[in-house]
Amino acid sequence: MKLPVFALTLTLSLSGTLAHAQFQKPEDAIKYRQAAFTLMGAHFGRIAGMAQGKIPFDAKAAQANADVLATVVNLPYSAFGEGTDLGDTKAKPAIWKEMPKFKELAEKMQTEVGKLQAATKTGNLDQIKVAVGDVGKSCKACHDSYREK
Amino acid sequence: MKLPVFALTLTLSLSGTLAHAQFQKPEDAIKYRQAAFTLMGAHFGRIAGMAQGKIPFDAKAAQANADVLATVVNLPYSAFGEGTDLGDTKAKPAIWKEMPKFKELAEKMQTEVGKLQAATKTGNLDQIKVAVGDVGKSCKACHDSYREK
Repeated sequence: MKLPVFALTLTLSLSGTLAHAQFQKPEDAIKYRQAAFTLMGAHFGRIAGMAQGKIPFDAKAAQANADVLATVVNLPYSAFGEGTDLGDTKAKPAIWKEMPKFKELAEKMQTEVGKLQAATKTGNLDQIKVAVGDVGKSCKACHDSYREK
Repeated sequence: MKLPVFALTLTLSLSGTLAHAQFQKPEDAIKYRQAAFTLMGAHFGRIAGMAQGKIPFDAKAAQANADVLATVVNLPYSAFGEGTDLGDTKAKPAIWKEMPKFKELAEKMQTEVGKLQAATKTGNLDQIKVAVGDVGKSCKACHDSYREK
């Protein structure tokens, strides 16, 4: 019985202090969420590169990138309000038809990013690799359903 | 004699853990820094809106926005490397000719954002107004010199 309460708390926090976003125009919201995803991709990419051996492992840098990621990962979901489905966006209309499922996937990803942040604090590359894999799966799950290619 | 050491520390941190950015292409760096500025503008704008009476003052929201701003404000300056002066950018070529001055203005802004973050923790709107003004001035100082209109 704990999980629904936790999910509810997360949902409320998504629409809470940071999320009464007051975007003046839908295109502002679209630009904002795209910016957040750009930073998420860049900082996750640096940790993933280390996990994949493409970038030399640097425990301190991994942690710094995870800290940024853990902040930025909370941002984009305030910017999928009504009327932001049209325009220069790859977001599929299904998002607004299936908002609870979309938010569930967002929250899953936020949870996995939290685990990645914890893993980077250990400095253990094997733990980081596992967490990177789980974050990557959570990105993909949402992109597969809700992002145009 | 303390100030130059502090400035040096900041400069090193700009080119430190977060900043060996490994952008694969110059356009990746440009997109990244524009994304960071977009988020900075959005989150600063929400606090500035409260300071100007355009958005109802909400101490908790001001603090949450300042916390995001304090993270994001550290990001864009890793993405002004060599070769990122051309392309889809409003960054003036003067940046690369006057990098020490550009970084000084960046650090000034980071310092002012730190003060704004501290002000939002007090919940005192008058203090927030002062700090918003100082952050705004530091944005403008850099835009006037280094951003195309």
